[in-house]
Amino acid sequence: MDTPARANYDPRTHHMLTFHDAAQKFRDGADTPRAYLERCIETIEAHEPVVKAFVVLNKDGARAAADASSTRWKAGKPLSPIDGMPVAIKDLLETKDMPTDFGCAAYNNNQTRRDNAAVWALREAGAVVFGKTVTAELGGSHPGPTTNPFDAARTPGGSSSGSAAAVAARMVPAALGTQVGGSVIRPAAYCGNIALKPTQGGINRGERQTTSQSTTGVHAGSIEDMWQVAIEIVRRAGGDPGKPGLFGPTVTPEPVKPQRLIVLESEGWPALDGASKAAFEALMENLARAGVTLLRRKDHAWVEAFEHSIADSNFVCNSITAWENRWYQAALMEHHPNGVSERLKSTVRRAMAMNPEDYRALLQKRAAAQLCHQALAPLADAVVMLSSPGVAPLWPGDKPGQPLAPRPTGDSVFNTPSSMLQAPAVTLPLMSIGGMPLGAQLMGQQHEDARMTGLARWMLRHITPVVN
Amino acid sequence: MDTPARANYDPRTHHMLTFHDAAQKFRDGADTPRAYLERCIETIEAHEPVVKAFVVLNKDGARAAADASSTRWKAGKPLSPIDGMPVAIKDLLETKDMPTDFGCAAYNNNQTRRDNAAVWALREAGAVVFGKTVTAELGGSHPGPTTNPFDAARTPGGSSSGSAAAVAARMVPAALGTQVGGSVIRPAAYCGNIALKPTQGGINRGERQTTSQSTTGVHAGSIEDMWQVAIEIVRRAGGDPGKPGLFGPTVTPEPVKPQRLIVLESEGWPALDGASKAAFEALMENLARAGVTLLRRKDHAWVEAFEHSIADSNFVCNSITAWENRWYQAALMEHHPNGVSERLKSTVRRAMAMNPEDYRALLQKRAAAQLCHQALAPLADAVVMLSSPGVAPLWPGDKPGQPLAPRPTGDSVFNTPSSMLQAPAVTLPLMSIGGMPLGAQLMGQQHEDARMTGLARWMLRHITPVVN
Repeated sequence: MDTPARANYDPRTHHMLTFHDAAQKFRDGADTPRAYLERCIETIEAHEPVVKAFVVLNKDGARAAADASSTRWKAGKPLSPIDGMPVAIKDLLETKDMPTDFGCAAYNNNQTRRDNAAVWALREAGAVVFGKTVTAELGGSHPGPTTNPFDAARTPGGSSSGSAAAVAARMVPAALGTQVGGSVIRPAAYCGNIALKPTQGGINRGERQTTSQSTTGVHAGSIEDMWQVAIEIVRRAGGDPGKPGLFGPTVTPEPVKPQRLIVLESEGWPALDGASKAAFEALMENLARAGVTLLRRKDHAWVEAFEHSIADSNFVCNSITAWENRWYQAALMEHHPNGVSERLKSTVRRAMAMNPEDYRALLQKRAAAQLCHQALAPLADAVVMLSSPGVAPLWPGDKPGQPLAPRPTGDSVFNTPSSMLQAPAVTLPLMSIGGMPLGAQLMGQQHEDARMTGLARWMLRHITPVVN
Repeated sequence: MDTPARANYDPRTHHMLTFHDAAQKFRDGADTPRAYLERCIETIEAHEPVVKAFVVLNKDGARAAADASSTRWKAGKPLSPIDGMPVAIKDLLETKDMPTDFGCAAYNNNQTRRDNAAVWALREAGAVVFGKTVTAELGGSHPGPTTNPFDAARTPGGSSSGSAAAVAARMVPAALGTQVGGSVIRPAAYCGNIALKPTQGGINRGERQTTSQSTTGVHAGSIEDMWQVAIEIVRRAGGDPGKPGLFGPTVTPEPVKPQRLIVLESEGWPALDGASKAAFEALMENLARAGVTLLRRKDHAWVEAFEHSIADSNFVCNSITAWENRWYQAALMEHHPNGVSERLKSTVRRAMAMNPEDYRALLQKRAAAQLCHQALAPLADAVVMLSSPGVAPLWPGDKPGQPLAPRPTGDSVFNTPSSMLQAPAVTLPLMSIGGMPLGAQLMGQQHEDARMTGLARWMLRHITPVVN
């Protein structure tokens, strides 16, 4: 268990960078998207040397886009509510004006000259795409250089490390991440962000369709910006091929008080440290005090059955993804033996020992867990659970000659349930321990992204954060 | 209606190039994969100037691969039954040693330096990947230069034009194609090939996952080679992410006599020319004479309901695909206004007028048709229908100043049913009209690829082709 040094995060007083409240000033000329961007650039210049959130910035392109947006706002003709919003893009997603290196040495300065679907949609909506953020190698576990903005000795989480840190450090109001196991929700929680990991396929992944659990998600400093970014993308680029895409209103769903919530322990609970358990239980008490009925595994046989169905979610998720990545990672490793990490090589070796029958058995397990989850729909409004096993762990880096740390960007054990259930999850910064953020997440049934957003919005307004 | 000039194709006597029967000679030294390859290269050199099946060949790489295979066979250690098989690859699929131009000027000499999942798997199985075949632009309708091997004035079909023609011209025993509307089955039928369009996701599409109906399929000169190529790929690369992948035995399924077949008219029947109707009805008579019970729309209400559910399959398919391609084709058109055809531009304009609600309505139509199809499972062993509306049409090329021909590679109206049903289809060269091939296809329930292959194998052995 970590005993964190006292950092300076307090969820009761911490102010995140927001954009949705700037519209009126853009309209009346008290502010402009260009001036907003310049403030972001100043923040980046001040904090980037320690935080290391970005792989590359396109300041010139961003300034031109922000100027065009300023003109549109002044004329009263913004392309969307996010016109002029600076958005950072995880470096797994292609951008026509910046390289896409996937956090992998083998792809150094990889110029694809294409936009990912969500990136294309952001530009269509007038957003300012101005930087690529650090990702763990190929979205896996081998970390990049980014540090946690609240304690540089700690990981920001991964694989959406840079997107999480850039939002937390107020460098941008929103950023795109992706999650295949825990890569949106965990880093958001470690960094005190609000984030949406949508229903599988809710946001069109564009060229990144080669794994069945990966989703494009949104990190933001406010729930309004989180939702608005997501829905503006989907209005233009839709969801994944064959999927209906994110459902919901064109403005952030109104706050809705949950009547009943299922409190999920999940696979990570038994090994969880005492401080995190205490903080989460205190948060549950605050919910109960606010009149929300809580339902636990001891209270209903279906909840217990559901806990069982996801009791090995980490293994199921990681194995599914290992098989799905096998063909291209094996080829990459063969082609660039010095361009991939030892962590990746060990994943590929594991995948090469699998066959289609192994994979089919894992798909069956996943499908069974999804049925157990669906059965809970009539019992409660949502599931509530921790977003990570404690606060962001210390990460001193790999030591030459020492065995590789298994989870340098933290453990996804609280995230693999929503990933394997292909269900929407929203994480909220409602706790802190020792001055470091700790998140709680709401998980809904597939396609209940808007409902989760409304419940989350209510919790942000009415539930007192826990500071331990 | 076309009145074809007399060409020289006769399904009763035509001999295709096969590979599966070469194994014994490879083992005993009477033949080698290298010698087999050299014969393919000779055929290509003889016919390629007219057929124009290939975009690029990698003869050196192919010879090295064939030599390595020859050594393995000689040592009695082939990597698989397709070790040494020359396979041509549609130029929509990435190859690490050849460019991938997508039949699109904007992608001229596009070196991605990666293998598609199926290409990677073919190499792992020892196959000789030695050429990229012409595709209609981006897998759509704007044609490449390939001609029909049986009449150079006619289209080979599309978009898998080069793969179809290369197999038909005996340049290779098998080739990979892809189908999103009709691009595997129709060109195979126009060229007299046997081909499998698998259950959606049956063969891992690798990087090409951005449309919900596209499938990687196999053209071959024999049903044995068709199945063996498919199953060897899937044993190594699986199916699409989240899908179980092609099921079936590791050798070609045994012939199975169908007891009952549903005869499907589909959307294309009313406008079909009389000669094609007569040939198809004659084939149905041959089936009935062989003891197969035929079930038509007038015979059962569920068949009639099914015909209704796919009565606008062409519109549903094309609209679904237009929306799914929208984000990247719009960006491509903006970026390379002179690098895409007018045909593509008109598709993009249509897609830009759509929104997510339009797309969701189309997905509902597709899902409803799939339910109508599933209901037929207990009624018969499979569906039998034409593979195309008649033989390959004449294609004189676009005339400057004239309106663009709407379907220069032929009409996919008989193919969009299996595409929207995401169901397996096998086409067989069981008819000819005026010396040009005409195909019939078997369509099964999802995941019945092996069953369709067994039924098709029986038909090839026991049903007399129709020559009109």
